[in-house]
Amino acid sequence: MLMTPPSLATTLAEHLATINLSRASNDARRFAAMAVVDTIGITLAGAAEKATLIARRVLGGEGANGDAMILGTSLRTRVLDAVLINGTAAHAVDYDDMARSMGGHPSVPVVPVVVALGEQLGSTGAQVLEAFIIGYEAECRIGRVVHPHHYEKGWHPTSTLGVFGAAAAAARLLKLDVEKTAIAIAIAASSASGIKANFGTMVKPLHVGQAAHDGLMAALLASEGFTANPGALEHKQGFLQAYDGLDQVHPERMLAERDTLEVEQPETGLKQFPCCGSTHPAILAMIALAEAEAIDPAQVTALHIRMHRMRLPHTDNPDPQSPLGAKFSLQYVTARALIDRHVGLADFEGDAYRQPAIRRLLAVTSIDAFPDKEDGNEFAAHVKVDLDDGRVLTGEAASAMGRGPRDPMSDVEMWRKFSDCAVSVLSPEQTRAAFDSLQRLDSEIPIRDILAPFAITLAAGQTR
Amino acid sequence: MLMTPPSLATTLAEHLATINLSRASNDARRFAAMAVVDTIGITLAGAAEKATLIARRVLGGEGANGDAMILGTSLRTRVLDAVLINGTAAHAVDYDDMARSMGGHPSVPVVPVVVALGEQLGSTGAQVLEAFIIGYEAECRIGRVVHPHHYEKGWHPTSTLGVFGAAAAAARLLKLDVEKTAIAIAIAASSASGIKANFGTMVKPLHVGQAAHDGLMAALLASEGFTANPGALEHKQGFLQAYDGLDQVHPERMLAERDTLEVEQPETGLKQFPCCGSTHPAILAMIALAEAEAIDPAQVTALHIRMHRMRLPHTDNPDPQSPLGAKFSLQYVTARALIDRHVGLADFEGDAYRQPAIRRLLAVTSIDAFPDKEDGNEFAAHVKVDLDDGRVLTGEAASAMGRGPRDPMSDVEMWRKFSDCAVSVLSPEQTRAAFDSLQRLDSEIPIRDILAPFAITLAAGQTR
Repeated sequence: MLMTPPSLATTLAEHLATINLSRASNDARRFAAMAVVDTIGITLAGAAEKATLIARRVLGGEGANGDAMILGTSLRTRVLDAVLINGTAAHAVDYDDMARSMGGHPSVPVVPVVVALGEQLGSTGAQVLEAFIIGYEAECRIGRVVHPHHYEKGWHPTSTLGVFGAAAAAARLLKLDVEKTAIAIAIAASSASGIKANFGTMVKPLHVGQAAHDGLMAALLASEGFTANPGALEHKQGFLQAYDGLDQVHPERMLAERDTLEVEQPETGLKQFPCCGSTHPAILAMIALAEAEAIDPAQVTALHIRMHRMRLPHTDNPDPQSPLGAKFSLQYVTARALIDRHVGLADFEGDAYRQPAIRRLLAVTSIDAFPDKEDGNEFAAHVKVDLDDGRVLTGEAASAMGRGPRDPMSDVEMWRKFSDCAVSVLSPEQTRAAFDSLQRLDSEIPIRDILAPFAITLAAGQTR
Repeated sequence: MLMTPPSLATTLAEHLATINLSRASNDARRFAAMAVVDTIGITLAGAAEKATLIARRVLGGEGANGDAMILGTSLRTRVLDAVLINGTAAHAVDYDDMARSMGGHPSVPVVPVVVALGEQLGSTGAQVLEAFIIGYEAECRIGRVVHPHHYEKGWHPTSTLGVFGAAAAAARLLKLDVEKTAIAIAIAASSASGIKANFGTMVKPLHVGQAAHDGLMAALLASEGFTANPGALEHKQGFLQAYDGLDQVHPERMLAERDTLEVEQPETGLKQFPCCGSTHPAILAMIALAEAEAIDPAQVTALHIRMHRMRLPHTDNPDPQSPLGAKFSLQYVTARALIDRHVGLADFEGDAYRQPAIRRLLAVTSIDAFPDKEDGNEFAAHVKVDLDDGRVLTGEAASAMGRGPRDPMSDVEMWRKFSDCAVSVLSPEQTRAAFDSLQRLDSEIPIRDILAPFAITLAAGQTR
């Protein structure tokens, strides 16, 4: 009898089965814990966004009873609904981390699932963290197979690949074996969706909620004995063919570099600022320079920024006309960094982009690209500041995708981002307690207890 | 200022806005009502299938409270859950109607939505019927744009297009205007999914449940002010590009023949027998011949079937080895038609395909194709029966896709199919009452009242 090679989903499930937290590197554990904390923070930031509120209303979240917290509220609902709502919230302010092998945002489809399902199952923080690493691994490994064609074709990988991450993470918490994990992945292949045509609308964050929901559903169905074709990825009428075409994909890349986990890859990173990732190096360079030289913004007569040319078409915006426009204005965020030595969520609300001090700096800012043949500068930025006393100050930054496992954000930076995100839904005391509690994630403490400080108790008559 | 032409979703929504039941043809109203009744019947047939039971368990249907019936049970649950469960049930026995312009099964993604949402909103039977026609129209109109490439690429049109039908039907019941209907269609474009690699597994019916659920969700979100890109179909990173490629689609076909509704097209049809549609003409020819000539099966010495060659590769199966195999055995179903003068669900359960009288006929059956150049025979079948007294009897049938609006099933045929489907979950009295009540669909009676006979009351301790 001929031996049939195992299917891609089975091969992936076998690889996932080799991973457990106790064998993960320190880098992997630390970055994973940071990513979970970071994602919970940005979920709080998105909890009061209109897309999230509508999703909550449509799912009947207000009157629901269930095991899982709707983050940023006093409500608990069914786990499947919570992941759709929290997943939508997590992507609503576009402040979430990146993984290049996925071509998208890896944590937002996975964290809502591991948190809510972990609450229901009574899982420990360590089990939640392990499941997160598994989910991250699954979606990025499939990402390697289809990237970059998938993104260029019009798919939103955060959801079309995120659904596999959600399924694999849930499969681990549910303790599914290799066979059922492969089935969960195969079911997920039949619910992957999300097109970039809907970017710039509320559907973009909804994609993430859907991916988290559908991935969890796939794992739950598999756990109950649902059947699917384990060959659903590579089948001639399967995921790879339908979404990309079999001539566009690279299955052989799926398990490349399998001695390191995807969360350890240098090209992953948390977003330190709530604006386009391409602007981050300039922000970092300007903050460092402004602090080192104690620059008084009123003294600045000219400001010059130089970056790689591929970063400029979508960020060279000298006159932003909306909060969203300001997120994609290199000039605005650099001026903001110079004045405040920080860039936060409030800088993209209301009229912040119209402030006179900002407008004065925009008028004296110029931008150009590094010379074509200069090497190693794809992620770098140079800034130059002319002062009215004749001094000319320069600074630079060379950063990968935000702040990755090899260059993590500091505790202070993490706290600053988290508290900036939480401010709209938690009190300052609650924010501090929640952040401190989340530092215990990598432990045997039940995730329910770790999340306890998030349980908002509203005063009578108060609405959120 | 340049005028931008309306988007495809807007154009479709404008077309849908011109349709209302009072202006529909008699053919359209009658076929639509039959299709709804038929779909409710096959949903009952699928209510106890394992895929349905697992979906129900995962969604917590047992303990739920809500507005919408889980068909075939005494349970009521949330509308969104009911459509996922009933949608899965509707496709679980593969007995549902076909529309060629969609390349799939048009009613199953739409009926669960109009029934459950109609119950919640207090809609009349006529409003439910109108919304069904709208949904059918929407999915088939988009089907014209992508068919047949879409199917060949690996997509399951019943779900990838059905989601638009579900969204448009729900939009009508929710009384959304053109703009919001277009938004519902655009949101649906971001949740379309379902790949043929999962055919032959429980995921195939799940596709339908997902499409019904996601389409309803899209309309509910749109009704609450959710935003999406109305150009999400034709956008260069939109539905048509991502799923098929802009060079493979025909947007100009969307509104062709707009003077007739899709439910009136001759190439739509109900399935009269629960087996492969390609075998139906031979079954019809054999039943007519066996009845007209009062054939005694014991007298048959040879049986010969001739059909179009494109029907044979997937139906020429002289020795079926499973109930599913029997569904795709032209020999088996024709023998069954000769012996029983009917083909029903019980013929594809247990050991029915092994009965000695059947096996004797299979052994003397031969099949061949019409000569290549013969015209007009794509849907036809000839049968020839040799008897032991020397007689040779012949019969023929020329039928389109099952029994369409121009050749409807008779009341007796409808009843026979419905009762065959309902037998596993309803008592005979309840089946009769339910069928009779459904005949009042095209009326001002609330759908809730029309469905009242379906409310199963279980005796204490009884489980279903």
